Amino acid sequence: MSFRDDAQAAVEWAARYLERVGEYPVLAQVEPGWLRGRLPAAPPDDPEPFSALLEDMDRLILPATTHWQHPRFFAYFPNTGSDPAILAELLTATLNQVGILWRTGPALAELEEHATGWLAQLLGLPESWHGHIEDTASIATLTALAAARAAMPDRRVVVCSEHTHSSIDKAARLLELELRRIPVDDAFRLRPDLLDLDGACAVVATVGTTSTTSSDPVAAIADRVGDVWLHVDAAYAGSAWVCPELRASAEGIDRADSLVVNPHKWMLTGMGCSCLWTGRVDEFREAFSLVPEYLRTSEDVVSLSEMSIPLGRPFRALRLWAVLRCFGRSGLQAMIREHVRLAELFEGWVRDEPGWELCAPRPFSVVCFRRDGPDEDNERLLAVANASGELFISHTKLDGRYVLRLAIGNARTTEADVRRAWDVLRREASAL
Amino acid sequence: MSFRDDAQAAVEWAARYLERVGEYPVLAQVEPGWLRGRLPAAPPDDPEPFSALLEDMDRLILPATTHWQHPRFFAYFPNTGSDPAILAELLTATLNQVGILWRTGPALAELEEHATGWLAQLLGLPESWHGHIEDTASIATLTALAAARAAMPDRRVVVCSEHTHSSIDKAARLLELELRRIPVDDAFRLRPDLLDLDGACAVVATVGTTSTTSSDPVAAIADRVGDVWLHVDAAYAGSAWVCPELRASAEGIDRADSLVVNPHKWMLTGMGCSCLWTGRVDEFREAFSLVPEYLRTSEDVVSLSEMSIPLGRPFRALRLWAVLRCFGRSGLQAMIREHVRLAELFEGWVRDEPGWELCAPRPFSVVCFRRDGPDEDNERLLAVANASGELFISHTKLDGRYVLRLAIGNARTTEADVRRAWDVLRREASAL
Repeated sequence: MSFRDDAQAAVEWAARYLERVGEYPVLAQVEPGWLRGRLPAAPPDDPEPFSALLEDMDRLILPATTHWQHPRFFAYFPNTGSDPAILAELLTATLNQVGILWRTGPALAELEEHATGWLAQLLGLPESWHGHIEDTASIATLTALAAARAAMPDRRVVVCSEHTHSSIDKAARLLELELRRIPVDDAFRLRPDLLDLDGACAVVATVGTTSTTSSDPVAAIADRVGDVWLHVDAAYAGSAWVCPELRASAEGIDRADSLVVNPHKWMLTGMGCSCLWTGRVDEFREAFSLVPEYLRTSEDVVSLSEMSIPLGRPFRALRLWAVLRCFGRSGLQAMIREHVRLAELFEGWVRDEPGWELCAPRPFSVVCFRRDGPDEDNERLLAVANASGELFISHTKLDGRYVLRLAIGNARTTEADVRRAWDVLRREASAL
Repeated sequence: MSFRDDAQAAVEWAARYLERVGEYPVLAQVEPGWLRGRLPAAPPDDPEPFSALLEDMDRLILPATTHWQHPRFFAYFPNTGSDPAILAELLTATLNQVGILWRTGPALAELEEHATGWLAQLLGLPESWHGHIEDTASIATLTALAAARAAMPDRRVVVCSEHTHSSIDKAARLLELELRRIPVDDAFRLRPDLLDLDGACAVVATVGTTSTTSSDPVAAIADRVGDVWLHVDAAYAGSAWVCPELRASAEGIDRADSLVVNPHKWMLTGMGCSCLWTGRVDEFREAFSLVPEYLRTSEDVVSLSEMSIPLGRPFRALRLWAVLRCFGRSGLQAMIREHVRLAELFEGWVRDEPGWELCAPRPFSVVCFRRDGPDEDNERLLAVANASGELFISHTKLDGRYVLRLAIGNARTTEADVRRAWDVLRREASAL
């Protein structure tokens, strides 16, 4: 078969999948080992046609897939691989660029800086910041904290709140920094009055925490940090800043030393696009620049590998560029606003329903709630609701109590989907 | 436009690109800033059609692209995004999986373990090893060395050769380990008799060094390391082990504690597929496992995020699975053997040509050579040859001398391409 024929079949598979994704059980309904038990124990000796792979996509992969593209995926932080992002990824794989130095992929290098610059404009970030793209917020945060440690090598403490993401724990462990967790207020925001900066090289403020999407007060924290590196983790909520009315949480952001926002969470790029900005390029180069002989060239350009851990990088910017162009500022704003509206609606239904309670403020598109009664009932409710295949939600613990989270963030989600989620939850709660 | 229409146009763009890639100048012929100077300073307010992006791919991206898919890309380690890999990436982007826990992507998790298991069989690795995929060897090596450090926290030295890749330097810097470089023999292989393991938590042996593709003697090193963690970096050359006749460099590999091989280098997967195997799963979990409340589930499964730095991972295994199936053992062997044959041919031409010399043994598909005379002449030769657009080669320094490297590894490369490279080099050398 020719590339065109196989590609045509792959596109048809993709188009059908995207049309029907809402018909699948959201959460995969298989047991661990289901797929491996059905795969040949050994790889083939001789070539198989690509069509055999496509058949197995239906037969083996889809039943073992949890559908992140599903309109009723409400767990964790939902996200969307939008049409332009999917097609841009096809182009990325076709070009197969490897960004090592500027010369190994000039378009890759310049578009990464340019598209992150465009996004900085959309989000209202300082013009002078330098942006680049990492694959995940875990790596972006590790990178930022490594720069902070390099800037102040004699300080070995990272300060954050009790609600900061576990990736900060992992980064601190890797960098051998002590993590000091500061208590939060009753809206789950770091209390700046309790900041203890003794020995600190960095403070991590979160805008949109994982449990409740609370935002630490960046400006008040910035007032107190002095020369301590201020890293802001806005992996989820930073995308909301594209809407001016949602920028309260961005107050003081211009005083941060580094910032991470994941367009793959709430800005349609699909997995693997975490933007990291900094005004402190020199400190990043101090931490990461290392140019061996076989990579020396005549161009006077800072390579992105001097700002990050990996030497080589894929052409991640192409998807971000495609999304920013094919949706535009207005399209991105419309999506964010609709998700916030739907979350507000759901929040209202919970508030008005006897026997249910809201468990945290809802600043963006995530609602934390529970059914009155013991934790076990809520755990069982989560299990049976997810087992229905009609929706997928996740949970957290707040003040020691088990709490359900309904997170809205998939571009396919409509009011009818949110309504159905609420119907399923009430139905299953009554049945228990 | 519908997804199908845009996808059809994207596929047509990709098909034409792949048909014509050999007609472009290999190395981008633009100056730094060329692309950014042509991009709008601000992102659009309103949506643009995907077709506008495709037009700009021709107008703006291609002129600023160094063509890694080009048959005369002979720099660094060439690689190929093969047809099945490109189309698998379209499917990956369509599914948009995020691997956090097993349940967030059962197929992602199980296929990553299964496909790396298949590859382990093809390369002759121990059956008991656990494999997973990182985006780059830089991250994979950092991950392995972090596990080594966690296993022996009181030892702060990593031992390697003078020819070990710069990513080891970067990992050591990040992990605050001291790097001790051991001299090499006259074939650029680490000398086990000079190994100094005082205070060492890890030894890094390289199979296929970046400068000359020399292989450190893994078995002899394994004989001496005792309880020190032995990490083997076979990012490039490990793929060659699919051919039994090229497995001499794998002797002793079963005694390694961790191993990295990049299928994206010489096994057709396209960028972003670095496989990391280990028999020491517990030590990896010790270094990386960290499951916060909001990620606790009832399944008794080790998540891949407990083996690696990032919490979330894309569905990287789909491309590897596609390649292993669509080429099969025989197809992969045929490609590797042809590249080794072509390198041997080029090596012979250089050997037989007065005024040129070979500068290192050629165990795989990379030839190190130079023209007799001062370094400056060879530097100029490299510059004018690359500026011709007819080929792209890179350089290194060996024993203080500037040396040219012709690396073969793109699946499109034919004997005619290698012949043309030699013609261009002799032509430009005569003209200088």
